[in-house]
Formats: sequence, C-alpha cells, structure tokens
Amino acid sequence: MEVVNLELGGRGYPIYIGAGLLQQSELLARHIKGKQVLVVTNETIAPLYLGQVQSALVDFKVDVVTLPDGEAHKNLHTLNLIFDALLENQHTRQSTIIALGGGVVGDMAGFAAACYQRGIDFIQMPTTLLSQVDSSVGGKTAVNHPLGKNMIGAFYQPKAVVIDVDTLQTLPDRELSAGLAEVIKHGALADLGYFDWVEANLALILAGDTAGQITMIKRSCEIKAMIVAEDERESGVRALLNLGHTFGHAIENGLGYGKWLHGEAVGVGLVMAADLSCRLGMLGSAEGSRLKQLVAAAGLPVAPPPELEDDMLKLMARDKKATDDGLRFVLLESLGKACLRHDVDESQLASTLKAGSGLLEPV
Amino acid sequence: MEVVNLELGGRGYPIYIGAGLLQQSELLARHIKGKQVLVVTNETIAPLYLGQVQSALVDFKVDVVTLPDGEAHKNLHTLNLIFDALLENQHTRQSTIIALGGGVVGDMAGFAAACYQRGIDFIQMPTTLLSQVDSSVGGKTAVNHPLGKNMIGAFYQPKAVVIDVDTLQTLPDRELSAGLAEVIKHGALADLGYFDWVEANLALILAGDTAGQITMIKRSCEIKAMIVAEDERESGVRALLNLGHTFGHAIENGLGYGKWLHGEAVGVGLVMAADLSCRLGMLGSAEGSRLKQLVAAAGLPVAPPPELEDDMLKLMARDKKATDDGLRFVLLESLGKACLRHDVDESQLASTLKAGSGLLEPV
Repeated sequence: MEVVNLELGGRGYPIYIGAGLLQQSELLARHIKGKQVLVVTNETIAPLYLGQVQSALVDFKVDVVTLPDGEAHKNLHTLNLIFDALLENQHTRQSTIIALGGGVVGDMAGFAAACYQRGIDFIQMPTTLLSQVDSSVGGKTAVNHPLGKNMIGAFYQPKAVVIDVDTLQTLPDRELSAGLAEVIKHGALADLGYFDWVEANLALILAGDTAGQITMIKRSCEIKAMIVAEDERESGVRALLNLGHTFGHAIENGLGYGKWLHGEAVGVGLVMAADLSCRLGMLGSAEGSRLKQLVAAAGLPVAPPPELEDDMLKLMARDKKATDDGLRFVLLESLGKACLRHDVDESQLASTLKAGSGLLEPV
Repeated sequence: MEVVNLELGGRGYPIYIGAGLLQQSELLARHIKGKQVLVVTNETIAPLYLGQVQSALVDFKVDVVTLPDGEAHKNLHTLNLIFDALLENQHTRQSTIIALGGGVVGDMAGFAAACYQRGIDFIQMPTTLLSQVDSSVGGKTAVNHPLGKNMIGAFYQPKAVVIDVDTLQTLPDRELSAGLAEVIKHGALADLGYFDWVEANLALILAGDTAGQITMIKRSCEIKAMIVAEDERESGVRALLNLGHTFGHAIENGLGYGKWLHGEAVGVGLVMAADLSCRLGMLGSAEGSRLKQLVAAAGLPVAPPPELEDDMLKLMARDKKATDDGLRFVLLESLGKACLRHDVDESQLASTLKAGSGLLEPV
C-alpha cells in the first residue's frame, strides 16, 4: 500500500492507494470517531462493492443510501436524499459519511457532510479512475445547478481517501479513458517526466496492469496534493488544475450534464487549451500535437461537438473561473508547465472555438 | 453609531449599530469588493426598506430576490431561488450578497453565500430584534429539513453586520417580544448586570426607545461576539448560547415551523431550562422565578404547548446538540452563569417536561 499525505495543518489527511483496501477494517476505523456511519453509494457500485465495505464496518452502526447513477443526478434534489437518510436514522454530529463511488457520489456525499449539522466527518472511497486521481482529493465538493456545473458547494476536506485499485477491474473502458484525461492534465500542467511516463505506459494502463495503475494514481495524487496544500481555496496556483476545464465545462453545460463524461469534455478541453496556447505563440505546435495524440490514444474525443460551436463563448462566460474582469484561461507554456492568463486575444479565442475538428492542425 | 468588533483573525468583522444606517452608502461600499450585489430580502421587508438600500448601492449593479416571508419557507427549495437569481444574473465569485431581513433571510442568504461557487462575500442587514441581537452575528447559517431545524448549513462569517434600529419601528410587537427572548438569554447566561438592566429598562424598550434599544443591542452583540471569538465552531463555550434552545427547538419542531416564533419557543425554553436547573439543585427558586417573570413581562409564553407534552423527549433527541452519548443541556448555575451538563437525571428531566404550565411553581 502506498500513502500520499496532503499537508493542510490540522486538516491534513492521508491518501491510501493499493489493492484490496475496501475490506481493511482497521484502516477505516482509524478515521471514524463516532459509532455511526452513513455509506453513500450509487445503484451501479452498490451490488459490486457495498458488501465488502459493510463487512469492514461490522463494529459500527451502518446505514446506506443508494443514489441513482450519473452526473444528471448531481443536484440539490438528490443531495436531499442524503439528508433524509441522515435524519431518518438520527445521525449526530459525531457521525461519519463514507462516499463509495465515483466523482458524483464523492462530490455529493462530501457536500452533504459539509452541510449536515454544519459539518460532519467524511471519508472518500473512490471507485473510478477519475475520482481516484482527481475529484476525491482536495476537498472540492458540490452539486450542479441547471445553469452551471458545481455552482453550489463547499471546500471541505475528507478525513482520509482510500483508493482500492481493484475497483478499476469493473470500470467500463469509457470511464477509464475519462479518468486518463485528468492524468494527462496532471502531466501537462506540472510534470513533463510524468507526461513521458504516461505516454510510455498507456497501453499497460489501458490493459489493466495493477502495478502501473498504482504508480500512476500515486503520482497524480502527489501532484494534486502538492498544489492543494499550497492553495486550498483556489486563490492562486490551484487554478492551474482547471487546465482544459473552462472549455470542458462549457461542453458539458451546453450538451446537458451526463451526455459526455466529465473526463471526455476535459480531454477536448486540454486539446482546445493547447490549440489556444499555440495560437498565442506560447506553446510549440509539436508539443501541442503530442498532447492531442496522447488524448486520442487514451480513447478520448479531441474535438468539441459541432452543434455547440456558436454557443461556446456564452457557455464559457458562465463558468466559475469567469471574473468581473472577464474570462481567465489556464494555458500551457510548455508540456509540464501551465500558467494563468487574463488577457487572451478574443480573435485567437474565436479561432480556437471555430476550429472544430481541425484543432492543432496546421492552418 | 456604535461599533462592536468580532475578533476572528482574518475573518473578523465590524457590527455597526445605529439609526439611519440603511442609507449609508459609504458604510456598505467599504465592505463590497466587486461590482455586483444581490440583495436577498422578503415580501414583508421589501416594500418598507429595499428602496433605501438600493439608493445606497447606486454605484453597484444590484439584483434583488424577494423570498416569501416566514420560517416555513426556510428550506432547500427557497434557498434555490437565491441560486437561481445569482446564476440568471451571472454573478461571479466577486459578487456580494446582502441579507436584508430577519433571521430567516439572514440564515438563508448567508448559507447561499457560503455555497455559491463554494463561497462569496455577504453582509448582514438584520431588520428584526431577534436577528439584530442574535442570528446575524456569529456566522451560523442554515436551512431547515422537515425532520429538524437548521440541520443543513454552514459556519460562514459575514464581512460586516449593519444594524439600523429604525427598522424596529415597523416590527410587530410579537416579534419585538420574540427578540427579547435572546436578550434575556444573554443576560441569564453571561451577565447578571445586563439581566438587571433589562429588567429595569424593559418598559422603555417595549415602548420603542431608540437610545435604549441601541444600548441593549450593543451589549447583546458584545456578549455574542465575545463567545463566538472564543469558540467559532461550537466545540466548547459557544454551546452556552443554546440556553433554552434544546427545549425551544423541540417545540418549534413539534408544532411545525412557523406556528410559534423562534423567540417564543426560546422564551419557554429558558423557563424550562431554569426549571430543570432548580430541580437539579443548581439554581435557587427565587432566581428561577425572576427569570420566568422577566420572560412573561417581555410578552412571551412561559409554558410549552400541552399537546406536545408526550413527544418532547423524542423531539429533543433529534436536536443537533444530541450526541452519541445522549442529550446535552445548557443549564443555569445562577443568573448570569450558564454551564453544560451531560449527566441530567432522566426523572428530573421528565418532571420538567410534565410540568406544563406549572414550571418553576412550588411542588
């Protein structure tokens, strides 16, 4: 088992990464202070892994709430099902919520934990690659609003993150690819060596190699933990983690949540950010093409849906990263080095938005 | 104008108390960092005071959301109206919410500010005595759930509290009395001298004397600010501010929100806490009677609704102050000194719950 520690003073926590961790009673018990636990999961994950987690929690009074699966259900209405379960079973301020599932479950369970009685403990047990390398670490919790993604939420850190890579064995290929979008993002924004490693080991990862997956998840968690430790509330460097996300959120928002997976939208977003970086003369075209090729090799789309072309700018203006002074962009100076730019030329942005399937192609 | 400062390091803020403050542009502008403001108010307060506040905000882009009035609307559904208004008007992370109204408006607007894009600024402009002396100060924000009051919320501090005592001139007598429940609570739990002062000046306050109201609100805010500064997240001494509230919440919850005003339930709760303190031999019966008389003189009920007698214990067990180890009670050692007790004898508690209109009467 590997351990990455997120250093946040009194609110820091360990991220455990290994095989067979769902059943490890002692690991979980170490991070539960009371007697009561609510496991929040979804209808896809429950039949696969809930039993293992319940067995590991025999010493606690355990209740379960099983949510419908998918981003389309990440809203206030579904959130309220968690509050119902907490109150119907008389959970106190000493209770702990365990999020067993992907990013949607983690974001909602974490936000419920942040709000219930103004804050109770929670533990992340992410079961998708995307949530293992990204959303379960760093304390961003939220639900969507019909007018914007993750618009209602809190910064609220878990007490521990328990990543069992065995869960990837049942993950659909499409979702494995979606998780790789965040992996590629981590390499592209912070660590060229990691980007190289992902390129070299992609086939192994896609084939389900456990050792490779552990190595990869650990490095992604290290990068994320390092950035979050420096800037928990995204007043500075943490914004770099949004590489590809301003474009990606606009796509998700324009299509309606759940049509594309988040990671698929981020995959295209990475390519669009690279395209814009190239047009602005920041990134070399060879580097941009390398990024696009890796996104494609991971099984991800590399062009936005054509029907959104005319609406992208308006959709992007709604993004949380918009400020009173206009849109901010995370762009690439090189592979392995991202930066934040407020002063993007509108005609260059328009060119990227109009490029469609010709992103990063020679003009 | 009086100023009380709540000291919370980087999150501290001023509480301004005076007449005519709603119109003071400069005072508001000092605490608004962006260009956009959303005023959250309700249908009772809007016709009375919204115009004044809008005039004071001419230099900003101001949107308004007017909520239905009353505790019955303090829920996730109404909260979502605030998110709708923020998103429809494209408010960014730099926006500021102003809560113009009583405790319900302040609790909901504050919770919306805590959650919108994971946290934006907000300013409290409380217009009822209860919110001026209690709920607007200290950063407790929340909405109710059908199974419990204030069960969904956050600790989230405003950037400033602006208390215009002129708003009390339009406050119904019943609500003035409700606010006095918290005033009496502050004296009873922390300051015998203040309790004496309230006894001596009650007639003046009830008659609407501005100078007396300012003196009173300032002292209540000082007591609350002192306690919150010491224990923002209620892990210790802040729990003492719940004097009367375990009983009071059970009454509100049992009757259905909005039947009794919060302050009315707290008024009875104070009498019940005093009654239990006397039965446990902690408080002298003369002191208990003095408290009961002051509650009655303030125009508040001094006995719980008879129809709830059998359900009180069950209703109390749902309270946030319940722990895995059972109910905690805030009780009185003397007038001016409260304490927290975990070890309350059940038969004595049962006697208090059964006493009905005979609370604090000789057996």
